[in-house]
Amino acid sequence: MKRTKIIDVLKSTEYGKDICVKGWVRTHRSSKAVDFIALNDGSTIKNVQIVVDPTKFDEEQLKQITTGSCICAEGTLVESQGAGQSSEIQATHLEVYGLCGNDYPMQKKGQSFEVMRKNAHMRLRTNTFGAVMRIRHNMAMAIHTYFHEHGFFYFHTPLITASDCEGAGNMFQVTTKNLYDLKKDENGKIIYDDDFFGEQTSLTVSGQLEGELGATALGAIYTFGPTFRAENSNTPRHLAEFWMVEPEVAFIDQEELMDLEEDFIKYCVRWALDNCKDDLQFLNQMIDKTLIERLEGVLKDTFVRLPYTEGIKILQEAIKNGKKFEFPCNWGDDLASEHERYLVEEHFKKPVIMTDYPRAFKSFYMKQNQDTADGGSVGYKGAVAPGPTMQGTDVLFPQIGEIIGGSVREESYDKLMGEIERRQMDKTHLWWYIDTRRWGTCPHAGFGLGFERLILFVTGMQNIRDVIPFPRTPKSAEF
Amino acid sequence: MKRTKIIDVLKSTEYGKDICVKGWVRTHRSSKAVDFIALNDGSTIKNVQIVVDPTKFDEEQLKQITTGSCICAEGTLVESQGAGQSSEIQATHLEVYGLCGNDYPMQKKGQSFEVMRKNAHMRLRTNTFGAVMRIRHNMAMAIHTYFHEHGFFYFHTPLITASDCEGAGNMFQVTTKNLYDLKKDENGKIIYDDDFFGEQTSLTVSGQLEGELGATALGAIYTFGPTFRAENSNTPRHLAEFWMVEPEVAFIDQEELMDLEEDFIKYCVRWALDNCKDDLQFLNQMIDKTLIERLEGVLKDTFVRLPYTEGIKILQEAIKNGKKFEFPCNWGDDLASEHERYLVEEHFKKPVIMTDYPRAFKSFYMKQNQDTADGGSVGYKGAVAPGPTMQGTDVLFPQIGEIIGGSVREESYDKLMGEIERRQMDKTHLWWYIDTRRWGTCPHAGFGLGFERLILFVTGMQNIRDVIPFPRTPKSAEF
Repeated sequence: MKRTKIIDVLKSTEYGKDICVKGWVRTHRSSKAVDFIALNDGSTIKNVQIVVDPTKFDEEQLKQITTGSCICAEGTLVESQGAGQSSEIQATHLEVYGLCGNDYPMQKKGQSFEVMRKNAHMRLRTNTFGAVMRIRHNMAMAIHTYFHEHGFFYFHTPLITASDCEGAGNMFQVTTKNLYDLKKDENGKIIYDDDFFGEQTSLTVSGQLEGELGATALGAIYTFGPTFRAENSNTPRHLAEFWMVEPEVAFIDQEELMDLEEDFIKYCVRWALDNCKDDLQFLNQMIDKTLIERLEGVLKDTFVRLPYTEGIKILQEAIKNGKKFEFPCNWGDDLASEHERYLVEEHFKKPVIMTDYPRAFKSFYMKQNQDTADGGSVGYKGAVAPGPTMQGTDVLFPQIGEIIGGSVREESYDKLMGEIERRQMDKTHLWWYIDTRRWGTCPHAGFGLGFERLILFVTGMQNIRDVIPFPRTPKSAEF
Repeated sequence: MKRTKIIDVLKSTEYGKDICVKGWVRTHRSSKAVDFIALNDGSTIKNVQIVVDPTKFDEEQLKQITTGSCICAEGTLVESQGAGQSSEIQATHLEVYGLCGNDYPMQKKGQSFEVMRKNAHMRLRTNTFGAVMRIRHNMAMAIHTYFHEHGFFYFHTPLITASDCEGAGNMFQVTTKNLYDLKKDENGKIIYDDDFFGEQTSLTVSGQLEGELGATALGAIYTFGPTFRAENSNTPRHLAEFWMVEPEVAFIDQEELMDLEEDFIKYCVRWALDNCKDDLQFLNQMIDKTLIERLEGVLKDTFVRLPYTEGIKILQEAIKNGKKFEFPCNWGDDLASEHERYLVEEHFKKPVIMTDYPRAFKSFYMKQNQDTADGGSVGYKGAVAPGPTMQGTDVLFPQIGEIIGGSVREESYDKLMGEIERRQMDKTHLWWYIDTRRWGTCPHAGFGLGFERLILFVTGMQNIRDVIPFPRTPKSAEF
C-alpha cells in the first residue's frame, strides 16, 4: 500500500479509508485492552496515534515496538476520541523495519543539550531538533524565494580562495602538500608551486568581493553558502563553519539598502510565522515563552534608522542618568553588545538600523561619507559626525544584537585606492576587485546575514551549535 | 526618478511615460542625426535601445559613453520603430556613473572562452555568461522549489570533515597548523592535537552519509552545496570545487527512487524551458543549435530502466554487429562514457536509468541484491545477474553521460558491516553512520546530481569552467 506522510494523515478527514504510515516510534503504551503507539516520520512535529488491539497481534512482535524503533503500520483512518487530536489509525497490520535497543541514546526525555550534541547523529530524531531543522529549511526557502521574486540571481562564489576579504587572519589553510616533505626556498620559505593551486590558499571568510563582481554585471545577486572562521572561540555564538547570505545590488543607495534589509528580514520572519506554526508553538512552549511574541513584534514596528553619532549621544545620556555599561562608548569606539541591546531593547524597544560608522573600525570597501573642513563628515540625511565615517548600515535585533552587517560600497576608483593605500593593504590579490571600479563602475550596496543568527532568533534556541545539524567548533569535527 | 529594470521596460507598453534605466553600455552608434545606445543591466539578455538626439546633449559627454561604461538614462518610453524590438527610450537626461577605457577586456566581440576565463571577473558582463548565470540561478531555484513542494527539507551537511565518504583519497587537507613548526611524535608522525579540530580534517567529497542521518529522522532531505575533489584533472568535465545536490529519502525502494530521479530532472529541464526562454534562445543560436530540441526531447520520453546486465548484452550485441569501442565491456567492467553514450544516443535514443551494477565498482553503502546459489544475484524486476550486484540506479543522459548517481542504501546492520569488513575499511570515523542501522533502521535511498553537469546540459556549454562564476582547477584559484 502507498505510504501517506503523517503531516497529510493528520489533515485528512477521510475516515474509514485504509492507509499506510511509516516512521519512528516515539512512545508505546500498553494495556490489556489496547496499545497506543505514537509514530513520527519527521514530516511534522506531531505524532499520529496508532491504536492496536493486542488480541489481534502477535505478543512478541508488539513487544519489539519500543521507543526509537522503525515500523510500518497499515490500518483504518478514524476520528480520534482524544482531546486535541484529529485523526488516528486503527491498526490492521504492523511491520517492524528496525528494532531499537535500550542503549538508544535518545530514549529518555528531557536530556541536556550537551548530551544531545554528543549524539548529533541521533538528536535529529527528537522533537526539538526536528522543529529546528524544519524551521531552518523554511528560512532557507524564504531567502531563495524572496530574492528570486525580487529579481536577484543566486551567485556561487568560491570557497577556496587566494585572497582575504576582511584583510586579516583566522583562516583555514587548504592544501594538498605532503606535510612530511615541504619544499622550501633558500631562505627557508615554503614554496607553494607544487600545491594544488600553485599558491597558498584558504577557506573564504566572505563571498562579498566576488559577489560585487556579480552585482556589477547581473544587477542584483545573492550568495548563500558556507563560510569559515578559524577563531578559537568556544562560545554559544561562534561556529568555525557557518552559512552566510550576502546580497549585493547595483544602483541602490544607503536609504534603499536599509529598505532592502528591513523588507528582507521581515519577509523571513513572516514566512516562519506563516509556515512553521506547529514547530514555533512547540518551541514557544518548551524553549522560550516569548518567542512568538518577539517574532510578531519585529513585524509590527518600523525599524529605527539611527546614525552612529546619534546612538552615542543616546548612550552617553543614559550613562549620565545612571545606566552602567561594562565597556566605554565614546565617539570612535566600536559598540559592544550591551550598547546595541540597550538601544534596541530598552531605549527604542524595536529593531535599529545603525548607519554612518567611524571609518576606524569598518572595512576598506565601504563608501566614504563627505568629509568636512574641520575633520568631521556628513552622513545620512545630513547628520554631521565629528570624524570620518563610512556608509555602514547594520541591523540590530533584540536578544541577538547585530543580525545584519551591510554597507554601501565605495564605487570611486580613486577613493577606494586611497583607502587601500592608507591601510597599507596588499593589493596583489585584489586586482580583479579593483578592476570593477576601473571599467564602468557603478553605485552599489549589499549586506551579510549570518544564517545561524537568524535561526537562533526565529527558534529561540540559545546555542548556535543547536541550530545547525553538525557544528564545527574548536576541537570538534565529529560526524 | 525611480529606476526601472530593463526586463520590465521591455515588457511595458506605457508609451509616453517618463522612465529611468541604469546599466552598462553594450554598443553606442553615432550619426549626425541620432545616437543609439544599447543598454544592458543584467536583468535580461535583451538590451534596451536609448535614442539620443545629439543636438540636445553635450558632445563631450556623449563621447564618453563607450562600450562598457555605466550610465543612467532618463527619458520617454516610446514604441520602437526597429524590427523585433518592442519599446525604446527617447533620452531626456544622461548621467555617466563609470567611464570605460579602451583597455576594457570585454570590449571586442567574439573573444575566445580561454581569454574570457582569464577575465572571469569581467566575463559576467557578456551576453553568454549573463545567460549562463541566469540559467544557473534558475536551476538552483527549480531544485529548491521541487524539493520544498515535495516535502524535502534542505539539510546543511558540514564541509570540513574527519571522515571520507567514498573511502579513498584526493581530498584537500584543512589545517590551522603552523607548517614551519610541525609537532611530531617519537616515530616522526605529525601530531594533530594542536590543529584547530584536534585531528586531521579535510574538505568533504560528499554530504551523503550525513544526509542519511537527516533522512532517517526528518523523512526526506536534500543537500545542495559545494563539494571538493583534489584530482589533478585538467579536463572540460572536472572542477576541484563544484556544487552537488544530494536528496536522501526514507521509505522508498528502487522503483520509487527511479521515479524520483526522472521526475526531478524533468522538472528542472521544464523549469528552464518555461523560465529561461530568452537566454535559451540566445544559447541555441550562438552556442548549440540543437539545445532546445534536446531539452524538449528529454521531457517527451519516458526514461528506459535497464539493468546493467541487460546493458552489457546490448553492447556486446553491438560489437558483434561491427560497433567499435575503445574500452572493453564485459560483465564486471565499469562502463566507459562511450558505452553509456552508445546506449543513450544510438541504441535507445532517450535517457537511460541503469540499475543493479556489479558490487566490485560500487560503494560499500549500496543495498545488496539477493545472491543466488551459483554466485549470481537477482535484481530489478527479477532480472538475474551472473555475479553479486547492488541497487545502484544512475541516470545517463545524451551528451553528458552520467548526470545522476543514485542507489538504494543498505539498511541491514549485518549486511552493511559485512561489506565494510569485506572491504577492510577503517570504521573509526564511521561509528555515527553505522549507528543509523543499529537503532530504528529503515529502508531508504538517494542520489547525487553534479550541479554543473546539469548546467552544461541545460546551457549547451562545452566546458565546465564556463558554467560556474570562478572555477577552481589545478594551478588556478584566481578571483
